Amino acid sequence: MKLISYLEKSGRESCGLVTGDAAKPTGIIDLGDRYASLRALLADPSGLEYAGSRAHEQPSVAWSEVRLLPVITDPSKILCVGVNYASHIKETGRETPTKPMIFTRFAETQVGANEDMLCPKVSEQFDYEGELAVIIGKRSRYVTPEQAMQRVAGYSCYNDGSVRDWQRHSQQFAPGKNFPKTGAFGPWLVTTDELPDISAQTLKTRLNGEEVQNATLDDLIFNVPELVSYCSSFITLEPGDVIITGTTGGVGAFHKPPLWMKAGDTVEIEISGIGVLRNGIIKEPADFAI
Amino acid sequence: MKLISYLEKSGRESCGLVTGDAAKPTGIIDLGDRYASLRALLADPSGLEYAGSRAHEQPSVAWSEVRLLPVITDPSKILCVGVNYASHIKETGRETPTKPMIFTRFAETQVGANEDMLCPKVSEQFDYEGELAVIIGKRSRYVTPEQAMQRVAGYSCYNDGSVRDWQRHSQQFAPGKNFPKTGAFGPWLVTTDELPDISAQTLKTRLNGEEVQNATLDDLIFNVPELVSYCSSFITLEPGDVIITGTTGGVGAFHKPPLWMKAGDTVEIEISGIGVLRNGIIKEPADFAI
Repeated sequence: MKLISYLEKSGRESCGLVTGDAAKPTGIIDLGDRYASLRALLADPSGLEYAGSRAHEQPSVAWSEVRLLPVITDPSKILCVGVNYASHIKETGRETPTKPMIFTRFAETQVGANEDMLCPKVSEQFDYEGELAVIIGKRSRYVTPEQAMQRVAGYSCYNDGSVRDWQRHSQQFAPGKNFPKTGAFGPWLVTTDELPDISAQTLKTRLNGEEVQNATLDDLIFNVPELVSYCSSFITLEPGDVIITGTTGGVGAFHKPPLWMKAGDTVEIEISGIGVLRNGIIKEPADFAI
Repeated sequence: MKLISYLEKSGRESCGLVTGDAAKPTGIIDLGDRYASLRALLADPSGLEYAGSRAHEQPSVAWSEVRLLPVITDPSKILCVGVNYASHIKETGRETPTKPMIFTRFAETQVGANEDMLCPKVSEQFDYEGELAVIIGKRSRYVTPEQAMQRVAGYSCYNDGSVRDWQRHSQQFAPGKNFPKTGAFGPWLVTTDELPDISAQTLKTRLNGEEVQNATLDDLIFNVPELVSYCSSFITLEPGDVIITGTTGGVGAFHKPPLWMKAGDTVEIEISGIGVLRNGIIKEPADFAI
């Protein structure tokens, strides 16, 4: 199943099931009559079963009539993994970590697929990071790697857009990872039953159509079960929580000269078996303030 | 004014005004009939004015009848500042930073005054960090230091309890700063009008009655207006958001031998003009898991 959060033209937010295949979605079976959000659906132990029971229905909403929202609009936590691909570690010059490197992103920094990402007025160093997102399905604390996959609802694509100069103001990454509209999350959640071996999938990032990142997910230093287990050891994972699993080699900061995203660009993250997350880039007005 | 979030014996959560002085609070003027939470009160542009208009009333709830909750129970963001006192920088051996070091804590990791803080089962290195908390009163983005104090609602005490070994698993602090019940926030918000010069105040931490940290708030490398301005440059600050401004010298990790908090301990953070945040320490059961 492919599950989305979306906005109708009327302004109503909802969640639903996508009909058609990933390359050509045709419509949406609205589940908003039962669940206020996709997070609420996941928090119901029978939510995914209920969604499955309606998968045979005709779509009630046309695909062209909606705007996609971040897959989970209101996760209680977004946990981000740093330097988790051998190829990215090589380009950063860092040592291979012995524990996952975890930092955080606030939910309010996200946009959905096809929405514009925002380069802030205070930086020109806006970089892409194509990543696999893991969405938690069950409350979890101190789970082992062997137990972990039973707690995962599904996967999506994530662009962990990074404002590199602000990321490097200190040792801590938070400022560079939390500018508004710098994270893109979508287009949908694909349930784990459709991707029994996520490590066999490939991840590609394209900037204006040109491939800039390309990896297979078996290059992850800490794999999905290990990351879920580790994160559940320091905080209680809740349904709808998101773990973004780190980026691979090829980020713009390590191009010579650096390759920054700028207004008018289009960036795509494609993961086989999931789909394509596409976003345009706009620049924040120079006089913006609140 | 002293404003609190609290829990009645009936299980009802509310917010209100504290009557009596900081050393001997006598009761609470309940504001829960108008505001679902202290965050909601701050989000109302006339919320503080409304609270002030009721300050002459007799308390409607006895002080002994309630449990204190974290001052803001549901902040959208808690931004934490690292190494922001000259005395703490000296003991860590770090260089004086040129930009504030910012990391984050999730709201669900907090407890209120007089509640027990929790040493996790997977660590013995549970450390205190006495800090000044700044609570935002108005939505703010790209404010200057000169504008910043108009956006602050008030102050409180914070114990940014840190699980040191997990904090040092990688360069990023998040795991060590986000174990459940490791952050203590209270006892109340004191509005800025009562503390026109916060830098003149003193901060002390006591472990089992023995003073372990003692600083004046003019020792902050980045002061409150500078921190509010910096944070508002990378994210939109919202009413109820919290900036905890860093700890001073004397943390347990740098005692020789290290001084960790353990079950049965009592830790107090006292800031002059605000009050005392007191918490006991308990140990997580060895078989705990979800």
